[in-house]
Amino acid sequence: MTRDPRFDVLFEPVKIGPVTAKNRFYQVPHCNGMGRAFPSSMTEMRRTKAEGGWAVICTEEMEIHHTADHTPWAGARLWDDRDIPVWAKMCDGIHEFGSLAGAELNHAGATTANRWSREVPLGPSHFPVEMYDPVQVRAMDREDIRALRRWHRDAALRAKKAGFDLVYVYLGHQLSTMSHFLSPYRNRRSDEYGGSLENRARLAREILEETKDAVGDTCAVAIRFSVDELMGDAGITSEGEGRELIEMFAELPDLWDVNISGWEHDSATSRFKGSGFQDDYVAFVKQVTTKPVVGVGRYTSPDAMVSLVKSGKLDMIGAARPSIADPFLPKKIEEGRIEDIRECIGCNICVSGDHHSAPIRCTQNPTMGEEWRKGWHPERIAPKDSDASVLIVGAGPAGLEAARALGQRGYTVTLADKAAEAGGRVARERRLPGLSEWGRVVDYRLYQISQMPNVSLYLESEMTPDTLDEFGADHVALATGARWNADGIGRQNPRGISIADGAKIMTPDDVMAGVVPDGPVVVFDDDHFYMGGAVAEMLLRAGADVTFVTPAPEVSSWTHHTLEQHAIQKRLLDLGAKIHCGQNVASIDKDTVTLENVYNDALQVLAASAVILVSMRTPVDDLWLARPEVTRIGDAYGPSTIAASVYSGHRYARELDAAPHDGVPFLRELVELSPN
Amino acid sequence: MTRDPRFDVLFEPVKIGPVTAKNRFYQVPHCNGMGRAFPSSMTEMRRTKAEGGWAVICTEEMEIHHTADHTPWAGARLWDDRDIPVWAKMCDGIHEFGSLAGAELNHAGATTANRWSREVPLGPSHFPVEMYDPVQVRAMDREDIRALRRWHRDAALRAKKAGFDLVYVYLGHQLSTMSHFLSPYRNRRSDEYGGSLENRARLAREILEETKDAVGDTCAVAIRFSVDELMGDAGITSEGEGRELIEMFAELPDLWDVNISGWEHDSATSRFKGSGFQDDYVAFVKQVTTKPVVGVGRYTSPDAMVSLVKSGKLDMIGAARPSIADPFLPKKIEEGRIEDIRECIGCNICVSGDHHSAPIRCTQNPTMGEEWRKGWHPERIAPKDSDASVLIVGAGPAGLEAARALGQRGYTVTLADKAAEAGGRVARERRLPGLSEWGRVVDYRLYQISQMPNVSLYLESEMTPDTLDEFGADHVALATGARWNADGIGRQNPRGISIADGAKIMTPDDVMAGVVPDGPVVVFDDDHFYMGGAVAEMLLRAGADVTFVTPAPEVSSWTHHTLEQHAIQKRLLDLGAKIHCGQNVASIDKDTVTLENVYNDALQVLAASAVILVSMRTPVDDLWLARPEVTRIGDAYGPSTIAASVYSGHRYARELDAAPHDGVPFLRELVELSPN
Repeated sequence: MTRDPRFDVLFEPVKIGPVTAKNRFYQVPHCNGMGRAFPSSMTEMRRTKAEGGWAVICTEEMEIHHTADHTPWAGARLWDDRDIPVWAKMCDGIHEFGSLAGAELNHAGATTANRWSREVPLGPSHFPVEMYDPVQVRAMDREDIRALRRWHRDAALRAKKAGFDLVYVYLGHQLSTMSHFLSPYRNRRSDEYGGSLENRARLAREILEETKDAVGDTCAVAIRFSVDELMGDAGITSEGEGRELIEMFAELPDLWDVNISGWEHDSATSRFKGSGFQDDYVAFVKQVTTKPVVGVGRYTSPDAMVSLVKSGKLDMIGAARPSIADPFLPKKIEEGRIEDIRECIGCNICVSGDHHSAPIRCTQNPTMGEEWRKGWHPERIAPKDSDASVLIVGAGPAGLEAARALGQRGYTVTLADKAAEAGGRVARERRLPGLSEWGRVVDYRLYQISQMPNVSLYLESEMTPDTLDEFGADHVALATGARWNADGIGRQNPRGISIADGAKIMTPDDVMAGVVPDGPVVVFDDDHFYMGGAVAEMLLRAGADVTFVTPAPEVSSWTHHTLEQHAIQKRLLDLGAKIHCGQNVASIDKDTVTLENVYNDALQVLAASAVILVSMRTPVDDLWLARPEVTRIGDAYGPSTIAASVYSGHRYARELDAAPHDGVPFLRELVELSPN
Repeated sequence: MTRDPRFDVLFEPVKIGPVTAKNRFYQVPHCNGMGRAFPSSMTEMRRTKAEGGWAVICTEEMEIHHTADHTPWAGARLWDDRDIPVWAKMCDGIHEFGSLAGAELNHAGATTANRWSREVPLGPSHFPVEMYDPVQVRAMDREDIRALRRWHRDAALRAKKAGFDLVYVYLGHQLSTMSHFLSPYRNRRSDEYGGSLENRARLAREILEETKDAVGDTCAVAIRFSVDELMGDAGITSEGEGRELIEMFAELPDLWDVNISGWEHDSATSRFKGSGFQDDYVAFVKQVTTKPVVGVGRYTSPDAMVSLVKSGKLDMIGAARPSIADPFLPKKIEEGRIEDIRECIGCNICVSGDHHSAPIRCTQNPTMGEEWRKGWHPERIAPKDSDASVLIVGAGPAGLEAARALGQRGYTVTLADKAAEAGGRVARERRLPGLSEWGRVVDYRLYQISQMPNVSLYLESEMTPDTLDEFGADHVALATGARWNADGIGRQNPRGISIADGAKIMTPDDVMAGVVPDGPVVVFDDDHFYMGGAVAEMLLRAGADVTFVTPAPEVSSWTHHTLEQHAIQKRLLDLGAKIHCGQNVASIDKDTVTLENVYNDALQVLAASAVILVSMRTPVDDLWLARPEVTRIGDAYGPSTIAASVYSGHRYARELDAAPHDGVPFLRELVELSPN
């Protein structure tokens, strides 16, 4: 197939200082939980994106000096020449496909606690570090400032030596020492580096100029800047100092990479923001500079991208999450295969990898992070090893992905689901407030399957042990999902909760089915991901009187790792929920629940005509109990995230007909042991 | 000097199955934040303990299989033969000094989320994993159980191959799959592995027998077991199933390593428990078995150790924290130098290293974790490089340690403090409720200095720029500490808090000086380590009416990393504090404070005749401002933990007269990059 001419503009080259990007697709810096800790995994992941057509591919934040040490964070590091080989390998992989490699150099001052280097962190003024570590940054003196400028210059030279085409001056997200100097609230200095915007921007200007001087002959020098902190007058705004700074530095960098801050705003989830949510903030930038401008907004639609370029809002389409969900997004547009794009669902499970210093995961793209260690390519898969037939029971995320990937391998696949609608849990959860984009997990796979003559989908087709036997497939995979427990068993109550006769107990499955109880409702969240907060929101929007109870100290506590916790707790409060954190449910009676303080066991009683228990799920694996020779995948095997289900289905497809393997089923990087 | 004969019993050899420990000092397994992630650092740390005289030195938890993957945890790993070299090196280092090496093999089931391996975690029953990760363990079937037994046996053989003398079967702390099977609340099985204690202990028994069969010819097989979970009837108790299990397995292992559970109880801080706090729980064990018994209790006193052995409570003195604070504790007793023991203060800053997957730190021992990367030995230090004289201003933890270590090097040192008592912040903080053992930081160093003719301490000796000049030392170090801010500047209020005229503002410095305000007091904690909770406790005990306010979701939130958070919040509640979490202080008026909900900005007003602000500290560095050529150390340079101050003073002493160094000031381990 060939490209639709209306997308031609996206494939125009863009000159960036001394280098030229082959098209307008720009993978902005993004964390990946691999970096220096999983260097072979990281380099192959970036190389795969180059193969997928991205013209510029950047690293995540790259530590330039041991005085800003993010340990144990699995990001980029370029402290000295010993760190160069990893980045040289990454650049080589990117250059193989004619793409440009960008290095987001960074000294992160107050956002590092130097847990390994043990140096005193550095900043414009004395201040506690951003994390709760009992550590303060110290106010830098002139000698410290000179040293930081030297470190940045030296790091830029190392980046050039490694082969980078583009070097960043990072002034974004309040995540760099330069941005801390720039900040009207962090910088309390009275010297020439404090006070006026010009003074607060002095360090950034010096480093920008010195970076251009050091490497600008062959490397483009980009600046990454957050034009608005969404704090109103307390911080930088796109009408105020955000615009002023861009006016001040307008032609100094070779490229402007602009966004909003903090990270939770820049990477807002689809639950809270739609595609294009940054446009209004950054649209002015191109009016102020002639240099190429990159912006982001979780764009997956080529039409939207074209409109951004043609309307003069952006020169290059920045993407982090869309490039994770589909490393081949540019290639698919180029080849006229836009229906094949695996669109990001905006769930931010990718962020949890960074938070945990563990390799990134993606709900839509099960091969993300697996390119090197398992040799999984996002687009290619081995052809079938046999003419075996495969029956998959359950068309949720695991079953759909298994069917799609087996279909791609050439197997004859039958996918059966007892429901009238495909999608399993995703079909239910996409109806929760804010989660409609999650439906892309199903939509993408249903379309792909619909194009495969060797895959058949049967809805309203419940399987029993007998019909399984009758069907006689060579392989059977059970992807029948899981059900939420109604007994309260979970982390806080491993033996379950005492429930009196007549008490009305519900689960998220009931709420998703549309049941709205009368009278006061208690949502008890012992799960801590999105579900408790989402069902509470659904009930509140349906007019219910909701009290949210959790033994955790916050609502939806684990959603810190998807950058949503604060927004969820705010939303429930705004919708009128009463919230009791640090409280367990000790017992449930007909019209009341008894709460127990998790710290001192104090009891209190709340009125409740119904209690929604959100604690754990039990696999629906009756068919396996009857026919233990079938293979369970997804939640039917181990209830987890949708990302884990898609991965499980994909893995099943990859490994079908493969020889059994008893050791560690992936390549791994080890730490060198010193001989002495 | 020679050993006091009353300690002879501690140096008797102990036979443990096929091997013999040379004395009764036993370093039980402990995490160290290094493990496989910093393998050269870890091996040298353990080797140093062997040099210090410990007869048995064990690893931390050692992952045996990728289905129980603690990523990003920096602990031990022995997944396959590729992991052997690290442990072979550790064993060699330990054997150099005639000590025995122990491997705490572990499959951690429900306490791992398999963030890297992406396998479904395993357990006795379907259950959410212990952490809040949205992942469940799946109930193991018989095939899974057979596989786990095989994995453990294979790992034991790998441990033997690496050179270990002792191999663990880990049944402690609810941190292993075996312990999850044993648990009356996690195990809901109805087969031969569930129900009765005998059934729940079956897996442990099988693995114990199989481990003995596999490696018992040359390796001792130890069992580590928590006899009491401190949950009453809900869990295992030392009068109930804890005792029954030991009776059941009595002679099966070669050694019993016993303790209480969970980790926060086993490693209780001195703020909550004194030395010997486990004795009552474990004393029965020796009555039930003839095998050697190891127990712990933060023992640093040789008299207490002798008494434990002579009274028949323990055969070997287990130690984790005391061996971190002083790796040479056995040697010092052996050599009759018990005054030189650097006693553990029970602060648990060591645990924070494990929690952050960053190398362990110790308040008392600044060389901990530095043995390899900086070549710092806990007992030896290079002699002086010159005849320079050194003046140290400030006899807090940084100044005392700098004076001690410089004195050890042979320099002529003068230590001056304006106070009448040495100790700086430690002299104040040791008077906070529960923190008296922290005084050991001062007491140890004062005694050491008192033995050095080349170190002079002058109290009530305030230095000014002029007296500094007059003194004419070749080197001056400023260790003048920091003061708590009274303006509210801190993480939540970077510009400070609006404070009306006439409002009574206090800081922790005032509370530690003994001021107890009348009327309702608000303690505002924007610091999140121990200080806010400790001053609140001090005021409550003095009879004040205290409301504790914090923008964090919990009281003393960072004390999760010292295992104290729950206990602190409980204590404040028990003492009658009112607690408002998730609340900022928006403004302070004469008799009220206005709180602002951090999620939705809702306001509320509290009565307050005084407000204690706990937000950040400002260095006391006036002398440096006047004489910038002096060197600042400790809190005067960058306010942080006491551990950081001691480290800073020690580093100053190590580096005095050394050539300046511009690169990374320590050796570091890098991850191997795959050639393909």
